[in-house]
Amino acid sequence: MMELQCKEIAAMVGGVCLGDENRLIHSPAKIEDAGAHQISFLANPKYLVHLDQCLAGALIVDHRLELPFLPSQTTIIKVADAYSSFSLILQAFQSEPVYHDGVHPQSTVDPTAVLGENVGIGPYSVVSLKVKIGAGCRIASQVYIGSGVHIGENCILHPGVRVLDGCQIGDRCILYANAVIGSDGFGYAPDKDQVYAKIPQTGIVILGNDVEVGANATIDRATMGATTVGDGCKIDNLVHLAHNVELGAHSVIAAQTGISGSTKVGEKCVFGGQVGVAGHIQIAPGSQIGGQTGVTHTIKDANRKWNGTPIMPYMDNQRSNALFRKLPQLESDLLAEIQSLKEAYTTLAREFEKAKA
Amino acid sequence: MMELQCKEIAAMVGGVCLGDENRLIHSPAKIEDAGAHQISFLANPKYLVHLDQCLAGALIVDHRLELPFLPSQTTIIKVADAYSSFSLILQAFQSEPVYHDGVHPQSTVDPTAVLGENVGIGPYSVVSLKVKIGAGCRIASQVYIGSGVHIGENCILHPGVRVLDGCQIGDRCILYANAVIGSDGFGYAPDKDQVYAKIPQTGIVILGNDVEVGANATIDRATMGATTVGDGCKIDNLVHLAHNVELGAHSVIAAQTGISGSTKVGEKCVFGGQVGVAGHIQIAPGSQIGGQTGVTHTIKDANRKWNGTPIMPYMDNQRSNALFRKLPQLESDLLAEIQSLKEAYTTLAREFEKAKA
Amino acid sequence: MMELQCKEIAAMVGGVCLGDENRLIHSPAKIEDAGAHQISFLANPKYLVHLDQCLAGALIVDHRLELPFLPSQTTIIKVADAYSSFSLILQAFQSEPVYHDGVHPQSTVDPTAVLGENVGIGPYSVVSLKVKIGAGCRIASQVYIGSGVHIGENCILHPGVRVLDGCQIGDRCILYANAVIGSDGFGYAPDKDQVYAKIPQTGIVILGNDVEVGANATIDRATMGATTVGDGCKIDNLVHLAHNVELGAHSVIAAQTGISGSTKVGEKCVFGGQVGVAGHIQIAPGSQIGGQTGVTHTIKDANRKWNGTPIMPYMDNQRSNALFRKLPQLESDLLAEIQSLKEAYTTLAREFEKAKA
Repeated sequence: MMELQCKEIAAMVGGVCLGDENRLIHSPAKIEDAGAHQISFLANPKYLVHLDQCLAGALIVDHRLELPFLPSQTTIIKVADAYSSFSLILQAFQSEPVYHDGVHPQSTVDPTAVLGENVGIGPYSVVSLKVKIGAGCRIASQVYIGSGVHIGENCILHPGVRVLDGCQIGDRCILYANAVIGSDGFGYAPDKDQVYAKIPQTGIVILGNDVEVGANATIDRATMGATTVGDGCKIDNLVHLAHNVELGAHSVIAAQTGISGSTKVGEKCVFGGQVGVAGHIQIAPGSQIGGQTGVTHTIKDANRKWNGTPIMPYMDNQRSNALFRKLPQLESDLLAEIQSLKEAYTTLAREFEKAKA
Repeated sequence: MMELQCKEIAAMVGGVCLGDENRLIHSPAKIEDAGAHQISFLANPKYLVHLDQCLAGALIVDHRLELPFLPSQTTIIKVADAYSSFSLILQAFQSEPVYHDGVHPQSTVDPTAVLGENVGIGPYSVVSLKVKIGAGCRIASQVYIGSGVHIGENCILHPGVRVLDGCQIGDRCILYANAVIGSDGFGYAPDKDQVYAKIPQTGIVILGNDVEVGANATIDRATMGATTVGDGCKIDNLVHLAHNVELGAHSVIAAQTGISGSTKVGEKCVFGGQVGVAGHIQIAPGSQIGGQTGVTHTIKDANRKWNGTPIMPYMDNQRSNALFRKLPQLESDLLAEIQSLKEAYTTLAREFEKAKA
Repeated sequence: MMELQCKEIAAMVGGVCLGDENRLIHSPAKIEDAGAHQISFLANPKYLVHLDQCLAGALIVDHRLELPFLPSQTTIIKVADAYSSFSLILQAFQSEPVYHDGVHPQSTVDPTAVLGENVGIGPYSVVSLKVKIGAGCRIASQVYIGSGVHIGENCILHPGVRVLDGCQIGDRCILYANAVIGSDGFGYAPDKDQVYAKIPQTGIVILGNDVEVGANATIDRATMGATTVGDGCKIDNLVHLAHNVELGAHSVIAAQTGISGSTKVGEKCVFGGQVGVAGHIQIAPGSQIGGQTGVTHTIKDANRKWNGTPIMPYMDNQRSNALFRKLPQLESDLLAEIQSLKEAYTTLAREFEKAKA
């Protein structure tokens, strides 16, 4: 078990200790759960309510946050930015996944494969013909790497990952368990009787550097050319990217979202979960797409928020949703207004007839 | 092949035979498909229509259900509760998956791992450092169990399951093929240029007793602490539970639903398929969420039905949906009413002017 | 690397060469990406804009398409149908996945299993009791085939596929990486306290001929009888078919769609991505269901287009969606009309009172 003194932690994040700087910390925890040997953090004033019953051994506190009092059993570590400091501390306490060092004797590595320095390959993994794996990669157990695949340096492939023939992966990528890279695109040509014949999928998948692909996610190979994922993209579990999708650098896609074939996504887009994106469209850089949105057409304006199926500008969707909720009320209000106008008119018309007479 | 006489089946479920009690039954079937050596059941009066052409060798019939006649070639077994009786019969005819007894020589079990009595481990499975596996567990082939994982008694882990470092699993759990327990949570901190850095995910996943997790489903480890699934929860295929989700006991989640990070779900909730749930919210116990619903905010009232995106009380959603369907009609009706009022007013105003003149 | 002369390609597709028929082609590419040794195609007039800057070595051109000029560095191959010709060319250049020939010594094949001629089984695959695998099947590595499974001829099972006990697979099927066939259906019976007990799932899955199942897709076994997928069905990644679903021949299902238990789908239906289908309903043959649709009830009329949640005829849904988008405008327009009528009425009534006086 990892163990650090508060002063060591403070030094690590450039912070200042208030209270016992020798206190020992074993692990990070949420402020409401933390015990005597745990460290938590306070950045958002709304979490100050937890301070009263805080039992944490240490608290990372944002320097902009004023504490109403100093808890006696807690060492306070003041820092410039609580979020990024705490991320460093999490890193310090994180235990790396324990995968095999070196090539496990129960793996199958083709003699034509080229492995860099310090590559680990776990039991029951397969490394096929002419594969190249860069230095420092950790290939866990039960992984399949197809022929001609190139993998950069310091990647982690978790158990059950499949990278199929010819795909290319950059440096420092992480592929989580059972992710599938390079399965055939979903392309079929219907004949006149609507019987479908498979269109061969001759392309590959190219992942840039620092890409992460979630557990059980799938990225299909291109029909021709490449399905591409730009540097720094983060893709959550169970996401699907279809053939020939091009995903711009530093885009982020939450779980269970699917992007259809040949769609091009700009840089730094953010997708909520369960978004569906039509094929053959473009999405402008910096677009933010809310969860469950159905992106039915091209988005031209960059850096805007979108929501709804079919997709609308976020605020317009909010307004339409608000009216959808009260549609029954709106209908009956409008009908009542019209009815009362009708009655008023009838009364007036009758009185007018009377007056004429 | 399993073979039971009708009287043996009747004894098994505490039922009473009408007809040939020595008839042999080989397997269960649906009433419309069942043949001479098959058994089916009748609980719901609407299935009485099938009685006429029923060829089943035996029928489990709910004692509350009056049969219009007794089919000559079918043994009737009257029971107190047809559903639960038939479930017992299914159990009797079910063939357990055939997985390896004992530790297969082609598996890799770390010497520090502790296995209970009668644990089976199939070929190409990996059991890592300091794992504990309780008595009676069936670990199929090609399973990965990470270091420090604890698994209770009598669990079944189907082929390709991944349980990653440190996760804890209760008794009698079933993890279906290719499910992934304990992949990293989807946590990244954007810098000022919106380039994302990974936030270490230091927590674990804890599954209670009698939990089932579907094929290709994913449950992510917590950033800190634990993602927890309460006793008796049933989770369908391709479901995603994000980091730090807490799922109350005996909740049921249908396929392809996703729950975002840190959301707390009460006990005995029921989720339809493809539901999306926002992060950092609470869902009251006994909530019933319809398929494809988007749960965008906290649900405070227990035991209610919800639907729609964004979520609404079920009946309100039905009413709004009904009006959505007839929006074009509603618009034209209202415009016609207004137009006819305008015309009536114009006529009246003209007549009034004439009268004045 | 594959290499073909333009005249060889022309012969292959029954086409006519204009330009250098000896030019060597190495691979197919999209028209905007193709280089001097690549071949592309032109079928749709809207892609003629790319002709100007086309660097392709060869172009398959539909005979109905008139080219404004002949690019000097490109051999034109005129054909009767550009799409189907190009599919043939893709096939010629496609490299088959490189899986093991014969039975790999590091696989586990039960002695009771029966393998046809030329069956390949990759490392770390498991073939259980009494399995039958037809001639020409390619079983990749890390595949699990449960006891009693029957697989037809010339199937491909990619790495990590799981076919569980008793399931049956036709000829020429392709199961992509990590697909799971025959996991237990999601069936539980709640007791009076809403604690769920598992209903045994005693049935199987039957796939017809020429079926393809995408990466990480799941098809559950029936409670009794069989979940069936008809001949020629194409199922994309991450799709879920629940227990006792019956899918008609030549139906096509895009990624992340889910079909609930016991639903029967007719022949030649087409499902977009992320569609959700309720249980125990029927869908008429030839139905076309748009992406993200929620199919809440039986569809009786064949060959129609549907959209929306809850499902509506496609054009009706388009019209309602159009009004949903302008609901705020519609509300304020209607209120303004009513307000102006009220004012007109008030003025008239006041004048009338004045006149009477």
